[in-house]
Amino acid sequence: LTDGFAQPLVSLLSDFGLVDPFVAEMKAVILSVCPEVRIVDISHDVDRFSIMMGAFLLFEAAPYFPKGTVHVAVVDPGVGGSRRAIAIRTRRGIYVGPDNGLLIPAAQSDGVMDVFELTNRLMMGSEVSSTFHGRDIFAPAAAHLACGQLPEDCGPRITDYVTSPYGDPVFGKGMVTCEVLHVDRFGNVITNLRQAHPSEQGIVLGDKILFYVGRRRFSSRLVRTFSDLREGEVGAIFGSHGFLEIVAREKSAAEKLRLKRGAVVRLHLTG
Amino acid sequence: LTDGFAQPLVSLLSDFGLVDPFVAEMKAVILSVCPEVRIVDISHDVDRFSIMMGAFLLFEAAPYFPKGTVHVAVVDPGVGGSRRAIAIRTRRGIYVGPDNGLLIPAAQSDGVMDVFELTNRLMMGSEVSSTFHGRDIFAPAAAHLACGQLPEDCGPRITDYVTSPYGDPVFGKGMVTCEVLHVDRFGNVITNLRQAHPSEQGIVLGDKILFYVGRRRFSSRLVRTFSDLREGEVGAIFGSHGFLEIVAREKSAAEKLRLKRGAVVRLHLTG
Amino acid sequence: LTDGFAQPLVSLLSDFGLVDPFVAEMKAVILSVCPEVRIVDISHDVDRFSIMMGAFLLFEAAPYFPKGTVHVAVVDPGVGGSRRAIAIRTRRGIYVGPDNGLLIPAAQSDGVMDVFELTNRLMMGSEVSSTFHGRDIFAPAAAHLACGQLPEDCGPRITDYVTSPYGDPVFGKGMVTCEVLHVDRFGNVITNLRQAHPSEQGIVLGDKILFYVGRRRFSSRLVRTFSDLREGEVGAIFGSHGFLEIVAREKSAAEKLRLKRGAVVRLHLTG
Repeated sequence: LTDGFAQPLVSLLSDFGLVDPFVAEMKAVILSVCPEVRIVDISHDVDRFSIMMGAFLLFEAAPYFPKGTVHVAVVDPGVGGSRRAIAIRTRRGIYVGPDNGLLIPAAQSDGVMDVFELTNRLMMGSEVSSTFHGRDIFAPAAAHLACGQLPEDCGPRITDYVTSPYGDPVFGKGMVTCEVLHVDRFGNVITNLRQAHPSEQGIVLGDKILFYVGRRRFSSRLVRTFSDLREGEVGAIFGSHGFLEIVAREKSAAEKLRLKRGAVVRLHLTG
Repeated sequence: LTDGFAQPLVSLLSDFGLVDPFVAEMKAVILSVCPEVRIVDISHDVDRFSIMMGAFLLFEAAPYFPKGTVHVAVVDPGVGGSRRAIAIRTRRGIYVGPDNGLLIPAAQSDGVMDVFELTNRLMMGSEVSSTFHGRDIFAPAAAHLACGQLPEDCGPRITDYVTSPYGDPVFGKGMVTCEVLHVDRFGNVITNLRQAHPSEQGIVLGDKILFYVGRRRFSSRLVRTFSDLREGEVGAIFGSHGFLEIVAREKSAAEKLRLKRGAVVRLHLTG
Repeated sequence: LTDGFAQPLVSLLSDFGLVDPFVAEMKAVILSVCPEVRIVDISHDVDRFSIMMGAFLLFEAAPYFPKGTVHVAVVDPGVGGSRRAIAIRTRRGIYVGPDNGLLIPAAQSDGVMDVFELTNRLMMGSEVSSTFHGRDIFAPAAAHLACGQLPEDCGPRITDYVTSPYGDPVFGKGMVTCEVLHVDRFGNVITNLRQAHPSEQGIVLGDKILFYVGRRRFSSRLVRTFSDLREGEVGAIFGSHGFLEIVAREKSAAEKLRLKRGAVVRLHLTG
């Protein structure tokens, strides 16, 4: 349908919120460098300085963007210090942001090809503050990349970048220990167990899932869709991103089970 | 001025919030199918699962969009169950979303022409999850419609769609019983009484409006503009959308009168 | 890079929030008048009716936008009353909004050239409500300006417009009295002391800054970047916008010092 339509796409993710004009300043800088770019916000309500939450949201959203999208992500407690700025070329697009692990889950899911340190002053703003690299470094670099410069123009290739803030679930004797990656707006609790994990371990999940939060124990059905649950019933579901989610129909599972991001959930494996 | 300018427009409304990347995924899918589309957010902060609130916001905003706009709205407690997906062609545009009444007040205000069940898999994403039809069904269908496909391509015409979640005010002996449709950010209380309703009943509203909330009774002036009120004074006003609103100058009328969406307000008719 | 690329840019700022469809209606009106315009939100979460906060956010963000941008700002407690609508032409762009001081700090920072009262009905919507001039007057006027009409088409030139809601810091004997202009999402406290102010007064700020909030006294280091502070340490920093900010590394200085917008902070000058 749309072959040859060349408007480049930039996505933005940050912990800047939408009250202050930080995001607007980044957009204004991007459009000053590369006026024909399209900009899509992924989220600006990442919890302050939560690299883990930012990494998860970026990882979730990035696969839906067209090939060639430039993703800019800024959750950056080390701004102005010694942490490096990086650009990553993957099989599907380009990622720009701080070298603190934020970009890695999404980039690895695409297939990382090369990581470059972003040192080229010609790809930054004319003045670089020590407090707002989102506007002064990442936004202009992304705009230059969207308008045709190459990741290798950013600076030297590196291999010692900071890796993912996540771990994989740990399979033990009849038990798998998962981490809560995220709690979404609906109170769905997203764990780091992917649909492929159990079969990789030679395990088949049964229809009933028994899980433990600390010493509390819960039993739930593994269902295909929310509407297979009764109103308020807690269930388990492989959500639209392929992770096991603990959910409750039209209720918040997180509230019901008092679960937060970073919590540990152990699943009993009977299958 | 703008004849021949062909960039299609898509509006989005949902209860997804702006923290999670749900909205970004919908936009990414839309731009993957139809890169030249312009996207405008109506609201993503509809109260969770509140079809009534979503229907009201869509109804309010839609008339200001250019002819030909494709409106996508997703407030969808029944996702993954048996509720149908629909597309509606009206005199002014196209509406895409779940068949639960959400689209009806806006579409009826435009003038409904045809309602189609959305069953055509070629207009959906390549994978359809059971939890996120916004991204997997409604967004791609809207993008195809924005890029030139016709509503009749969606699927069979239907007439038994779910109707509006609203009622009209009920006129009784010297009294009209209204429902609170919405309380906006400023605490203005929007009722379902439209400016045309009283004259349709042969009634002229006076300058003073007496109204009851449960057993509490309030007297207010019917004014033309906020600045006709003293600071903090409660008044009644036909707002910019043509509905009777109970307001307070630079204060929240909703807080003052303890009124929420769905509450019943009775107006005493003296005119 | 982008010479000859002519898509005009409109920025929006308001206290309308993102729950109600007010902002969407403004965008829909703008795109109806001038479909090729690009729209960037600065902020819609200005505190209700806070002209001071709105003026500050606009002032911060405007310099990063390309030349020729049309800025629409609506924080408008006097809507529907006798306050005028204005358009300002500056050296960098055009500002449209109410005549209540909101636009002035940003426009003055650009360099004001001319102020016009906006009275031309042909540049407004076909119906003008008394409650929502953002949609019915400012948005259509901005769209006409973005699509080529001139500020002088708006109406008569005026000179008696309402001036800035801000004051400059007051230099006294060994003391400078500052106002808190804004507290951002990170709890950084932005004062009205600009980097150039002390040297204009023949003062050199030392490495230590002693400051008073009421009778409470705090000592802090003046640093160049957040990472010069220990975690939680309160410091002073000239932020990315050139104002002195009181900050705490990875903590909220505003919470620690119980400071809000509008508060008075006195700095002891030893330099």
